[in-house]
Amino acid sequence: MKRKACAEVGIRSVDVDLPEDISELALVAEVHRLNADPAVHGILVQLPLPKHINEEKILSEISIEKDVDGFHPLNIGKLAMKGREPLFVPCTPKGCMELLSRSGVTVKGKRAVVVGRSNIVGLPVSLLLLKADATVSIVHSRTPDPESIVREADIVIAAAGQAMMIKGDWIKPGAAVIDVGTNSVDDPTRKSGYRLVGDVDFAEVSKIAGYLTPVPGGVGPMTVAMLLKNTVDGAKRGIVE
Amino acid sequence: MKRKACAEVGIRSVDVDLPEDISELALVAEVHRLNADPAVHGILVQLPLPKHINEEKILSEISIEKDVDGFHPLNIGKLAMKGREPLFVPCTPKGCMELLSRSGVTVKGKRAVVVGRSNIVGLPVSLLLLKADATVSIVHSRTPDPESIVREADIVIAAAGQAMMIKGDWIKPGAAVIDVGTNSVDDPTRKSGYRLVGDVDFAEVSKIAGYLTPVPGGVGPMTVAMLLKNTVDGAKRGIVE
Repeated sequence: MKRKACAEVGIRSVDVDLPEDISELALVAEVHRLNADPAVHGILVQLPLPKHINEEKILSEISIEKDVDGFHPLNIGKLAMKGREPLFVPCTPKGCMELLSRSGVTVKGKRAVVVGRSNIVGLPVSLLLLKADATVSIVHSRTPDPESIVREADIVIAAAGQAMMIKGDWIKPGAAVIDVGTNSVDDPTRKSGYRLVGDVDFAEVSKIAGYLTPVPGGVGPMTVAMLLKNTVDGAKRGIVE
Repeated sequence: MKRKACAEVGIRSVDVDLPEDISELALVAEVHRLNADPAVHGILVQLPLPKHINEEKILSEISIEKDVDGFHPLNIGKLAMKGREPLFVPCTPKGCMELLSRSGVTVKGKRAVVVGRSNIVGLPVSLLLLKADATVSIVHSRTPDPESIVREADIVIAAAGQAMMIKGDWIKPGAAVIDVGTNSVDDPTRKSGYRLVGDVDFAEVSKIAGYLTPVPGGVGPMTVAMLLKNTVDGAKRGIVE
């Protein structure tokens, strides 16, 4: 999907396939080679990595100028801090904000509830919403009564990874609901035997919410678009400097 | 206060007084000198800096191993991210967590509301509470109705910098309230003409809350203690390595 999107917009994408038993040292060397290559403007390390490799170590070796995923701790720190700007905003959270903005949903002064606190989505999208002047609550697996908090939200970001956990009666009428979940559930009526559903019960919530993104076809394509945007932005910065 | 506390526990503190018209370059050189000095284990840059100096630039020059304030974006990023640990936790937020823990207040699964979102207190204490499995809400100057959210909190961290804004009827009976505010208000009955008050109306809230820190004498001394702890921890790390 990312490869195809690159081709469509004219970004050259290169796969670097490496053996599963590659040593950590050799993988670091490969990342350094891409860091040093002026023709490369963005580097994605496909996760998960084999168990003998320290994921944190590898990710931290990606040059911050080419960290188009935006997951480097320095980037996350700047994302979190008032008055600082990260080089790259993580793609899915950036896509969520873009969806809200393009749909004309006001964020400033609104109650936003983020369901989930992952490094990839829940945490950074909470930080973005806070910077955009929403009042932000983060609920997660240790929250005893998430529905009572979600019910107060003007904006819900569902990123818990729990199939259809968010029901119609969790939603304030008219709320904007962004469904980040992608869960596969058994479906014997399909040839594949499964189908993809979000963290939101679409049939129920679509009757209550003012805005709701579908799964698949909502946040996913927007994430890819933001990845392309980050890459182009990174390339532009390289030219200006 | 910090100097005196250092002397009490046997940490040697050194003041480096510099002229107000020092150039940015010369100040950076001074920071680098302290970074390189093996007898120095913690560096604090006294803020605010003169206007001709870029505060962000200077702070980012402090070696991350000696950033005992814990304000480096890389440190804040690691504080935010699941599975990562910062070298130093910012002192006031760390003090708030210590106060809760020493008072036997359970954080896990509780509703925590942080009033204020500063880089120094509101933001990092929110991240710490989230890591400690609280359900966290952050209210701030753009929140239309902060009292309705504070009223749901088992734990309130007041860090808005607004004298006595949090009233008795904002507080759930029995809640733990940490008052980080230090505001000076006019007081003609005092020789100095003013007195220090927190963000919490102490007289009212002390009747409702289960726990409440006083101002002065609550979070302030704990912040100093955490600064000393960070410095000692940094020095220990230096010995081990």
